[in-house]
Amino acid sequence: MEINFTPITSVGEFGLIEKFNSLASRFANPKVLQTIGDDAAVLRPTPGNLSVITTDILIQNVHFDSSYTSMRHLGQKAAAANLSDIAAMSAVPTAAFISLGIHSNVSVEMIEEFYDSFTAELGKFGCVVAGGDTSASPVGLVVNVAVTGEVEPERLATRSGAIAGDVVCVTGDLGRSHAGLMVLQREKKRYVEAGQPPDFTPGFEGYDSVLQKHLLPEPRVELSRSISEKIRVHSMIDISDGLISDMLHLCKSSGVAASLDEEFIPIDPVTRRTAKEFNEEPLAYALRGGEDYELLFTIAENDFPKLFSLEGYIRPIGRIEAGTPKVTVNRKDSPAEIYSDFISYQHFAKRK
Amino acid sequence: MEINFTPITSVGEFGLIEKFNSLASRFANPKVLQTIGDDAAVLRPTPGNLSVITTDILIQNVHFDSSYTSMRHLGQKAAAANLSDIAAMSAVPTAAFISLGIHSNVSVEMIEEFYDSFTAELGKFGCVVAGGDTSASPVGLVVNVAVTGEVEPERLATRSGAIAGDVVCVTGDLGRSHAGLMVLQREKKRYVEAGQPPDFTPGFEGYDSVLQKHLLPEPRVELSRSISEKIRVHSMIDISDGLISDMLHLCKSSGVAASLDEEFIPIDPVTRRTAKEFNEEPLAYALRGGEDYELLFTIAENDFPKLFSLEGYIRPIGRIEAGTPKVTVNRKDSPAEIYSDFISYQHFAKRK
Repeated sequence: MEINFTPITSVGEFGLIEKFNSLASRFANPKVLQTIGDDAAVLRPTPGNLSVITTDILIQNVHFDSSYTSMRHLGQKAAAANLSDIAAMSAVPTAAFISLGIHSNVSVEMIEEFYDSFTAELGKFGCVVAGGDTSASPVGLVVNVAVTGEVEPERLATRSGAIAGDVVCVTGDLGRSHAGLMVLQREKKRYVEAGQPPDFTPGFEGYDSVLQKHLLPEPRVELSRSISEKIRVHSMIDISDGLISDMLHLCKSSGVAASLDEEFIPIDPVTRRTAKEFNEEPLAYALRGGEDYELLFTIAENDFPKLFSLEGYIRPIGRIEAGTPKVTVNRKDSPAEIYSDFISYQHFAKRK
Repeated sequence: MEINFTPITSVGEFGLIEKFNSLASRFANPKVLQTIGDDAAVLRPTPGNLSVITTDILIQNVHFDSSYTSMRHLGQKAAAANLSDIAAMSAVPTAAFISLGIHSNVSVEMIEEFYDSFTAELGKFGCVVAGGDTSASPVGLVVNVAVTGEVEPERLATRSGAIAGDVVCVTGDLGRSHAGLMVLQREKKRYVEAGQPPDFTPGFEGYDSVLQKHLLPEPRVELSRSISEKIRVHSMIDISDGLISDMLHLCKSSGVAASLDEEFIPIDPVTRRTAKEFNEEPLAYALRGGEDYELLFTIAENDFPKLFSLEGYIRPIGRIEAGTPKVTVNRKDSPAEIYSDFISYQHFAKRK
């Protein structure tokens, strides 16, 4: 396979911006009146609706490892992570803003591939790139994404509305992204230990579902809107740090506790098999694994049957209870586990 | 002077976020319903108004030199640059979003100083930090800022509304920031060439106005609103790249030409003196110097007298004419200069 490497200097900043505009202009949103080309983008919010805005920074070798994250994957993931935050508010995404810091070891082709998948992933949900900034970077690639959306006030779902008696629900299945990450890291290690041979074939067969979930996650934008169309969502968060961590965020914001049942926590068969290969409990992947981008939400018990007709996979996994914020996981064959502190990845954590 | 250096690891990501929240919570805006602590911020736009959004990335050693940019200056400048873009749309800033990539050579004190001046500068104009993201960075400091604001549709000023016959106006004076930069670079060079002695005194006396303008620029948020309250602004841009470059942006967006008169271009006496010390024409600083963050706008001729009552310094500097986009500068003592291509700084420019 031949790989073209056109240095960014051969097109310059303005040349790059032209390429971006051409890729971004494949999509449009009638609420976005003006995109790139002025001091600021101009949007016409629907009168009466609320605006929501989220932002994320991705830095090479901190958030992603280029040895197994292609530019296409990175572009989709950068969009998906932010769209997932918009979905977690029950909102509809409208416009995205992207800043890129680009080192000279990044080619025009790489950036185009990134931007192509980034804009396409946004475009699936009617969201358009409306602004951005492009700069040189002394090291690696820096990506900052901000996405804005809107939501009817009565449909807004925050982290703070859970009440005792609520059913805790989750979309999709959990731990799958972490299983994919473990396979990628294992194959990278094998490749490095074999001396990086040009004919190396990574052992990816049979892992499609976990690799796909890790590399090309899909935000639950449409499912979130379908849920809030049918019922009133009391509280919602997206699962990006892992079930325990995000459940705790929701409990602390709402001032409640959650009691979850192991047997209801959805885990895909390939996730189970992968966890066992790594001598880990599949449940641990589901509880602690990050980047699933599923929705975790709480609703009144008698609303649950109204979700049966929805396509997509929604499962009740426990209950909200009154009390000090904590998460109890009721195990089938062992004592219940209780979590009251965050266990997710923390930047700048003190090394032991 | 004793300088405290508390490593970020001693407070961790969540400790840092707590410090940020405490600094940010000094300011509030009734349109911002929910700030940090959920999947996204929630804003209530004024029904009927348009939203504007701008974003900027700042990377250490690309956009700022830490040897003469203190964290306090950087914080204000990061806010001011984005507020200036909001002002250039005639809009009122509402909320800001900040992503920080922080290397381990940056202390808690440095980041607090940055955040303190960043939030204070926004707060002056009623703008609050409503969200952000914090990450480790392998090298230096990375700052991404997005600011949103709102504007009545009839007051929106874009780059594309200039028409033949318009008077071209500018706020404040030009080239002053560039003069400040030249002094800073000269003193840094002296310091380095002297072997970086601990008792080095930079020669800053008499340069207050140019240094202040470069290090602590003030966006024209209030003046912009006062202008659009009195008259209909046909087109507007902020001067961040230099007069010629930004005038050309406006001309290209509007499909018109501009004819400017040297004698009307406002230049501060200290800017003049500084340019001469560097054996440069003061006019060159005004035409090409960046980061003045003044407003450049065009209005109908008979509206100009309506601006007389405004505080602040507004000057007519030329005319909009029909024709191919270009900028003519009519000189007093030499032939007119004509610019039709951008001359501003371009990232990834090809080295000759």
